Amino acid sequence: MSDKQSGDLRGVFHPRSIAVVGASSDPRKSGAKWVAGLRTAGYSGPIYPVSSGGGTIAGLRIYRSLSEVPGDVEYVVASVPARSVLQLVDECIAKRVGFVQFFTAGFSETGSHEGEELERLMLERARRAGMRIIGPNCIGNFCPAAGIPLGPSPLGKIGTPGKVSFISQSGGIAAKLVEYGMARKVRFSKGISVGNCIDLDMSDFLQYYTADEDTAVIGAYLEGTRDGRRWFQTLRKASDVKPTVIWKGGRTEAGAAAARSHTGSLASSAPVWSAMLRQAGAIEARNLEELTDCLLLLQQLGPIRARNVGIVGGLADGGGGISVSGSDACNDNGLAVPPLERKTRERLLDLIGEVGSILRNPVDVSPAQFKGVDTICEAVRVVASDNAFDILMLQEDVDIMHSYLGIPETREVNTFLARLPGEMNKPLVVVLPGGSEEMVRVEVEEQLLTAGIPVFPTMARAARAVALISGRPK
Amino acid sequence: MSDKQSGDLRGVFHPRSIAVVGASSDPRKSGAKWVAGLRTAGYSGPIYPVSSGGGTIAGLRIYRSLSEVPGDVEYVVASVPARSVLQLVDECIAKRVGFVQFFTAGFSETGSHEGEELERLMLERARRAGMRIIGPNCIGNFCPAAGIPLGPSPLGKIGTPGKVSFISQSGGIAAKLVEYGMARKVRFSKGISVGNCIDLDMSDFLQYYTADEDTAVIGAYLEGTRDGRRWFQTLRKASDVKPTVIWKGGRTEAGAAAARSHTGSLASSAPVWSAMLRQAGAIEARNLEELTDCLLLLQQLGPIRARNVGIVGGLADGGGGISVSGSDACNDNGLAVPPLERKTRERLLDLIGEVGSILRNPVDVSPAQFKGVDTICEAVRVVASDNAFDILMLQEDVDIMHSYLGIPETREVNTFLARLPGEMNKPLVVVLPGGSEEMVRVEVEEQLLTAGIPVFPTMARAARAVALISGRPK
Repeated sequence: MSDKQSGDLRGVFHPRSIAVVGASSDPRKSGAKWVAGLRTAGYSGPIYPVSSGGGTIAGLRIYRSLSEVPGDVEYVVASVPARSVLQLVDECIAKRVGFVQFFTAGFSETGSHEGEELERLMLERARRAGMRIIGPNCIGNFCPAAGIPLGPSPLGKIGTPGKVSFISQSGGIAAKLVEYGMARKVRFSKGISVGNCIDLDMSDFLQYYTADEDTAVIGAYLEGTRDGRRWFQTLRKASDVKPTVIWKGGRTEAGAAAARSHTGSLASSAPVWSAMLRQAGAIEARNLEELTDCLLLLQQLGPIRARNVGIVGGLADGGGGISVSGSDACNDNGLAVPPLERKTRERLLDLIGEVGSILRNPVDVSPAQFKGVDTICEAVRVVASDNAFDILMLQEDVDIMHSYLGIPETREVNTFLARLPGEMNKPLVVVLPGGSEEMVRVEVEEQLLTAGIPVFPTMARAARAVALISGRPK
Repeated sequence: MSDKQSGDLRGVFHPRSIAVVGASSDPRKSGAKWVAGLRTAGYSGPIYPVSSGGGTIAGLRIYRSLSEVPGDVEYVVASVPARSVLQLVDECIAKRVGFVQFFTAGFSETGSHEGEELERLMLERARRAGMRIIGPNCIGNFCPAAGIPLGPSPLGKIGTPGKVSFISQSGGIAAKLVEYGMARKVRFSKGISVGNCIDLDMSDFLQYYTADEDTAVIGAYLEGTRDGRRWFQTLRKASDVKPTVIWKGGRTEAGAAAARSHTGSLASSAPVWSAMLRQAGAIEARNLEELTDCLLLLQQLGPIRARNVGIVGGLADGGGGISVSGSDACNDNGLAVPPLERKTRERLLDLIGEVGSILRNPVDVSPAQFKGVDTICEAVRVVASDNAFDILMLQEDVDIMHSYLGIPETREVNTFLARLPGEMNKPLVVVLPGGSEEMVRVEVEEQLLTAGIPVFPTMARAARAVALISGRPK
């Protein structure tokens, strides 16, 4: 049995053992996928598949009931029909389970009286026994460091453990955040899909993350709250301690109508929500990309505050249009692009000359390519040392670098960039657009991220994230 | 010599022969890359490298001067220093060249008197002889059907020829549009980077595209115009005939300041520009992604007008959050998400039931997965036949499909989707987010695009493009 106290949710993310109830030997069933995923991801505690049919799954014996399981069970993943949940709750209580997570849907979110009544009964029994419920209608916990993947997928992807933790009211959005976040190299500490959250809710997990030493950055997708007052109080406390990024689904009339059917969330006016998020000190994102961009920026740089941006485009060539559109992107998002100090401009003129360059801020250093890698790097270093701005956004076009400079030269420039933050007194953000040289781009992205530099696909996305984190979006 | 008449720019895109002046035997030089690119891309006319040093490049003899070239030269790509341009203009005239394109920079864009004077002299001599100039400070022409890649890259990428033509004042943006457009499967007919456009300018090319049978959709990136009246008149005529998408760089104060240094364009107020674009019937994009998204949508569907959107999420699972955020994205962009007709809702209830589904519009058909592929397809067909909306946006998560349904089932669903537009009386747009199954995603994207369906990476991007094309952005 769990030794949890009220509010101690360690057992959700680091359970000593997990039983998957509804884990038939048919690998296509969700329960079976859950077992396979835990095995693949390397969960180190005992995994107990449970299904009335018996048999084996992923090399493990399937127990016919929870009571047959030989050891203690701290955490139960339940993938059973709604009609069986009350019986399962009783079995979990008898087995002295700490937490039970219900994948099962068909409760209050359908709007039916039966669904609501079932939830009430489950909760009543669990409360009496001191057992906690996650969901129903959710895909539950995620903890890379514990080898727990998100949801029922046999691939068991967990990525490299990190310091970003999230809460999601939607299992689908949680899965997308993990998938897309991993692709962008967001490293997660924990995640939870709360579903209908009849017991443990978003505030409980937000509170836990606020105190959790392994969490430095918090993200959330939600469509509504049952206890708005507690949520905003908890959010304020969280935001005081750790940067917290919130994406509210159902901001619009059509979105709110969909949210009622999805998570049973009641509509609330978008401007009111935005104002309350601001008051609570939270950062508001409008979609998956913005949420991921903010989490990545915070993971790499912490809670920066930027107002004035220095822009460098065209390390090797083609930086003119990027300088213009990058400036548009900054201004669009309430960021300024102030002129360089005179000494910087003079130094750049000496270094690379006027022809084909833009030396004002934005800076297009393209012509430096003709003088070689050292001149390119020196030009960037000169710009970086300017005091007119407090963050440097640099666009690197790997395709062009490759084609104009060559492979070893591209590597040299990136080795220089990876070291640059160490000699700068301001943060560096690199924009690395996709192109035809995807293998090289990924290599460069990895190198820069490892050096602590956040990497974005476009100037517009980078500017937006910097503005959001800095509390300056237009 | 070219047989062009005034306004006949066929020789720019389908020249009978090309000389590259400044094509030294050093493969790292731009001129050499231009020659290599034309060879790789399969340009079928004679290519004449010219450089005073002689030698060979990419297996071709380098002529020491233009006059030494044995055959006629219709088009010259000039990659020579600014100090040599006047002499080259004279040599081109002597050789009865039709068009000369100057990669060379260092003219009026530097703001220097010498630069402006040089442009004036070049133009005067060319005009007198009836020779046309492209640039200077540009990367010139692009025509996949003629085997002409864009700019100096030995890779010579041209993609599959299509019906989308573009004009760009920035060579860098032109290159990015081609690179990113190809990745998204925009198929180009022609492109031109006009640079300082001292002779042939954006209006000339816009006029040519308007009449060009191989152009169905027009895109442009520009920072300003010298002759605004002519540009807007030409634009109005173009937009009357073919959908035309314009991205104006330098919309903001910082962007306009950068544009002055980049293409010498004078600032003009963003609202004034937007109003003029609307008046001219053009579509305004704000960045590379929006421009590409609009071009792709127009390529696939033509100039649609949509107001009411049907949304389907979660073919296999995880469609709830997407339904909510997709609705937000539509409303954010001025598109409505009206409720389904009652008969559609009743039919869906029969088919897949209420539990875990959203059957209102948006429609989350997730629970259909348990009944198999036929039920999923039938549910989508039922929604598609509803008359409440005039465009269907469907999100397919390949990762989830793959994991929940399996590979053959994913193929079955996509074969169904590829055929769906044939039985619908409204357009279909598919959202196919990136994930871990990139190989499968690309295969599905290819299949859907071939079937005429536009494919977008997110609901927000799809909704934005649909709204822009339909003249409804908020």
